[in-house]
Amino acid sequence: MKSFLELENALQEKSNLGKITFAVPCPYEESILVALSEGTRKGFCKGVLVGDCRKIEETAKKSNIELTPFEIVEEKEDAVAIERSCELLEDDAVSCLMKGLVHTGAFLKGILQRKNLLTSSLLTHVAVYEIPDRDLLFVSDPSIMVQPTIEQKKIIILNALHVMRQIGISHRRVAVLSSVEAPAPAVPSSVEAFEIVRDLRPSLSQEEYIEGPLALDNAFSLEAAALKGLSGPVAGKANLFIVPSLDAGNIFCKGLTYIGNFPSAGIVAGTRKPVVLTSRSAGKEERYHSMLLACLMA
Amino acid sequence: MKSFLELENALQEKSNLGKITFAVPCPYEESILVALSEGTRKGFCKGVLVGDCRKIEETAKKSNIELTPFEIVEEKEDAVAIERSCELLEDDAVSCLMKGLVHTGAFLKGILQRKNLLTSSLLTHVAVYEIPDRDLLFVSDPSIMVQPTIEQKKIIILNALHVMRQIGISHRRVAVLSSVEAPAPAVPSSVEAFEIVRDLRPSLSQEEYIEGPLALDNAFSLEAAALKGLSGPVAGKANLFIVPSLDAGNIFCKGLTYIGNFPSAGIVAGTRKPVVLTSRSAGKEERYHSMLLACLMA
Repeated sequence: MKSFLELENALQEKSNLGKITFAVPCPYEESILVALSEGTRKGFCKGVLVGDCRKIEETAKKSNIELTPFEIVEEKEDAVAIERSCELLEDDAVSCLMKGLVHTGAFLKGILQRKNLLTSSLLTHVAVYEIPDRDLLFVSDPSIMVQPTIEQKKIIILNALHVMRQIGISHRRVAVLSSVEAPAPAVPSSVEAFEIVRDLRPSLSQEEYIEGPLALDNAFSLEAAALKGLSGPVAGKANLFIVPSLDAGNIFCKGLTYIGNFPSAGIVAGTRKPVVLTSRSAGKEERYHSMLLACLMA
Repeated sequence: MKSFLELENALQEKSNLGKITFAVPCPYEESILVALSEGTRKGFCKGVLVGDCRKIEETAKKSNIELTPFEIVEEKEDAVAIERSCELLEDDAVSCLMKGLVHTGAFLKGILQRKNLLTSSLLTHVAVYEIPDRDLLFVSDPSIMVQPTIEQKKIIILNALHVMRQIGISHRRVAVLSSVEAPAPAVPSSVEAFEIVRDLRPSLSQEEYIEGPLALDNAFSLEAAALKGLSGPVAGKANLFIVPSLDAGNIFCKGLTYIGNFPSAGIVAGTRKPVVLTSRSAGKEERYHSMLLACLMA
């Protein structure tokens, strides 16, 4: 899979198309309604807007969005709107959840409180980028875990691989990133990467490969990998980058989005049903791409 | 300054042009000789190649480079070639130093052993990127310090500002990066950024501004900064990004180079005379751009 357009095409072959419903607490942002409206117009999904009717109508008016295709559940309080949305997901009344104009912490807390929604001991985040002439690039975790331990990093990897499988990525090549490509005590992330790879490798499926520590150049570029004498199924062609820390992942991903201008998407990993988590500054494309991921996973 | 071409133009106005000499220990890589040859051909500098004559000749032959414009100092052993190059710099026999095909550690050790070459208690690294429609973007430190303390980060900043002044960047706008834009105890780098900014701000010159913590989107994009209600001389228009750690800086910078394909350069900070430090996988453009920086600083 090389692009979000390919994801959209793949989605059209799904049997449950048009029956996928998104609950969105506090959808008071134009880009949210625009993305949701696009998904509805194309027949991919339906939307359940949970929040203050007046605010929803105001937002729709500003962005010239028709509200008729949507179901609206009136909940004036933000906290209650989050709770109600999570309840709809838990009760299978909707298929997916998408964050509206609410704080990430409050949104994640709402999910964490309903154990039935969780399939993993950790909620983690996966960012997805479309880079020209490459397979879609998955990055985890750039948003939730600040300084994950080795055990937590293993869960981050397993969560992200599960997301990739659900989306339909057949060959999953994991690079556990550091600043160097050999374990060096002076660079703790490189030693951690070595241990993670050693521990996880035996349990991965036939379509899954893992290498690390790898520096980003050696993970991404076949030429750079060759210069360092690195070969194998991952070096130079990884499609899942595991970052050593929140700081590294956040700065890297924001660099891809804001400096590189690469199309992107984001999805929560570790939940029974798809949860879209995009930052407040995300545009309508990022939100729409994220909805595509969720629809494929639903 | 928006591009390396502008740097090249600025260089042409320098009075010492053509007298700037580079010592290069072990220049056994085509891209090194090609970049050096380009600088010589354009009349910017001269080259002193320190190493094994036979290996130098072989490399020159492969890349079809004429060796006549260069001075060659025969030193068969790599370690001795590094030592000899540093000595030439210390004795003012050359104006700049450029790393050849030697290990970064051995190269930096050679410099650190000659106290006369140092102006700072730390050797740090500054990477420079050319991003369309932006001022040249400086990033520090993505290569040397693994997990700098607050005091070390202050030195990283002062070193980088000194480099920018020497290059002729008149307005220097420092963003101390983290994953969030407000100090939060859960994200240690954000608290550190807050302290660094508070401590350094009073001592900076009138043309220098500092803000932090800033997330990368808020440091780079005026739109993203406005969404968060951030204004002032730095948010959205920073031209010096201070990264929280080696991992964050290394992955970010390699992302800009390998995924974003932005033209780049690299220079050591904290030395009395310019030292070019590029990685082994650097191409001839990166090496040539780095030489331009060094020539402007010489």
